Amino acid sequence: MSGQYDKPSADPGGLRLHLNENTAGCSPAVLATLRSLTERDAATYPDYDAAQNAVAGTFGVRSEHVLLTNGLDEGILAAAAAALRERSNGDVPEALGVMPSFDMYEICTDALGGRMVTVPLGAGFEFPWDALRRAVTPRTRIVFLTNPHNPTGQTLELDRLRRFARDVAPALLFVDEAYADFSGDTLIDPDAFVKAPNLLVGRTFAKAYGLAGLRAGAVIGDPDTLLPLRRVVPPYSLNAYATMALPVALADNDYRAWYLAQVVESKRLLTDACTRLGLRTWPSAGNFMLVDAGDRASSLVEALAARQVFVRDRSHDPGCEGCIRMTTGVVADTTRLISALEEAWCGAAR
Amino acid sequence: MSGQYDKPSADPGGLRLHLNENTAGCSPAVLATLRSLTERDAATYPDYDAAQNAVAGTFGVRSEHVLLTNGLDEGILAAAAAALRERSNGDVPEALGVMPSFDMYEICTDALGGRMVTVPLGAGFEFPWDALRRAVTPRTRIVFLTNPHNPTGQTLELDRLRRFARDVAPALLFVDEAYADFSGDTLIDPDAFVKAPNLLVGRTFAKAYGLAGLRAGAVIGDPDTLLPLRRVVPPYSLNAYATMALPVALADNDYRAWYLAQVVESKRLLTDACTRLGLRTWPSAGNFMLVDAGDRASSLVEALAARQVFVRDRSHDPGCEGCIRMTTGVVADTTRLISALEEAWCGAAR
Repeated sequence: MSGQYDKPSADPGGLRLHLNENTAGCSPAVLATLRSLTERDAATYPDYDAAQNAVAGTFGVRSEHVLLTNGLDEGILAAAAAALRERSNGDVPEALGVMPSFDMYEICTDALGGRMVTVPLGAGFEFPWDALRRAVTPRTRIVFLTNPHNPTGQTLELDRLRRFARDVAPALLFVDEAYADFSGDTLIDPDAFVKAPNLLVGRTFAKAYGLAGLRAGAVIGDPDTLLPLRRVVPPYSLNAYATMALPVALADNDYRAWYLAQVVESKRLLTDACTRLGLRTWPSAGNFMLVDAGDRASSLVEALAARQVFVRDRSHDPGCEGCIRMTTGVVADTTRLISALEEAWCGAAR
Repeated sequence: MSGQYDKPSADPGGLRLHLNENTAGCSPAVLATLRSLTERDAATYPDYDAAQNAVAGTFGVRSEHVLLTNGLDEGILAAAAAALRERSNGDVPEALGVMPSFDMYEICTDALGGRMVTVPLGAGFEFPWDALRRAVTPRTRIVFLTNPHNPTGQTLELDRLRRFARDVAPALLFVDEAYADFSGDTLIDPDAFVKAPNLLVGRTFAKAYGLAGLRAGAVIGDPDTLLPLRRVVPPYSLNAYATMALPVALADNDYRAWYLAQVVESKRLLTDACTRLGLRTWPSAGNFMLVDAGDRASSLVEALAARQVFVRDRSHDPGCEGCIRMTTGVVADTTRLISALEEAWCGAAR
């Protein structure tokens, strides 16, 4: 890793299945709101109250449990900064996570002068709970886990996560629930942060709600635990368009239900297609799937790109050899992906 | 200071002269662009190329000299994080600045575990160059200066700043040019960062361009010096609306020239009014002025708020006793401010 996030490219107009975006776009109600904003809205530092209350209401917590962030990336950065801040004992503070996982945990830790310690997933992506617990040291300040996991799509048991929060205290446990809209599982409940004040839950509105371009995320946690994160996040980090869109997006249950159903159907279609093609897949609780193309992974990614279908080559990530991550969202896009996949996989010389 | 930025409030619909926003709003061309964006744009992680090239072109530098940030606040945070990152010698690293100045330098430094050292402005806001130089120690990692200064509006000589950059090296000199559109003075030129690789210049598009609600700023500097900042700033921290608006805003010279002329006229009108009322002011190179209301400052701020005119009470800031900061932008708004000021200042019991 270069220390910087490697932005994967896609040709303009191509089918973007490489960043787990919602390719349907935001809901029509959100677009109508965005188009109603005035020149004054664009020029005015945003007020957060309506957005913050809408997010709190959606998750059934109080407003003081919610830190709005400029995408969840900023929430990860703020949590890392808060956790790694204190250095008085001279040790380099550590963050802990698994490998492979979302790049930003390591990038943020490293950028802030901490050290990222990672434990590999087991064979078949078995989650290494025991090894993870053994890797906790007095230098461990924060543990980053993702549920459902990215890029494997596997779910982690909520009770196990709750126990793990107690195990790692006083270190923070940051559970990144970026894809939890698709699994339906969440650690967030009104009592969660009383029982585990060291637990922070990250959410994004980029995926199920289709707001990736607006940048809107949140960290949910105990109000006192959130305080040092609030000091890191600039006072107007959410833009006016995101603050206006959020309440509308969160209220549009029909749109959300439609997209969630599309994701379920897309995963079924892609799983079936991969079975026909002899490509291994894993059950995923996200809006993406990991597909094992063995030593042909990178050439398959290129062959799909040549057909204007862009997927994420994960085959060079340690523990992820041979794997490609494909967004499974809108069914029509998945159908196009499957056609391209059949052509590229069967047509190319083996 | 509580460690968190204190968001000053304003009633919805009131005249917002407390945050130096452009109360005219963004330009009509920008609004037309924003309204042309689709549901896909809102749902897609933004591409930076056009915005980055437009910013580089505006400042006459190459694209690799430009780091786009989610408002300049994020640029300040990233510079602080990069500067304060290394702790191997066990000392608490320091940032240096003057007092009073923009709150975010201290908030970011403190949030990241550094210590902010400040030197007071002299009597009549004389800039403390010698004391500042004497305050530089081996623990100093970054110096934050603002030109034109906020909240006083005074300009700093460019040559003096260039010499100071050499004086403080290897510490970084971060010159916040948030209001430089109004002074016309800038340190940015194609050679600036060759001569002073430790110089970073912060810019915002919130003020002259009226994009405060979109959150768009930039840090301009030597490409190698920018690298550790790039690692702090999340890969998609600018939102899609800001990236689409920037090239249009930067190209709309007529709108910008109009607003700059309004600011000049507003400062003349407010200066004259204050002279009539016996209120001391200082010449300002920004889109705001500092007005000395002595021990009636806070009550004057309240009396203006009761008239739905919101200005910034700076009278409790050390070195800024008695002072109120008032945005001087659109002439019609300044006229309304002056009426309210005359009423509140003359009508209230002394």
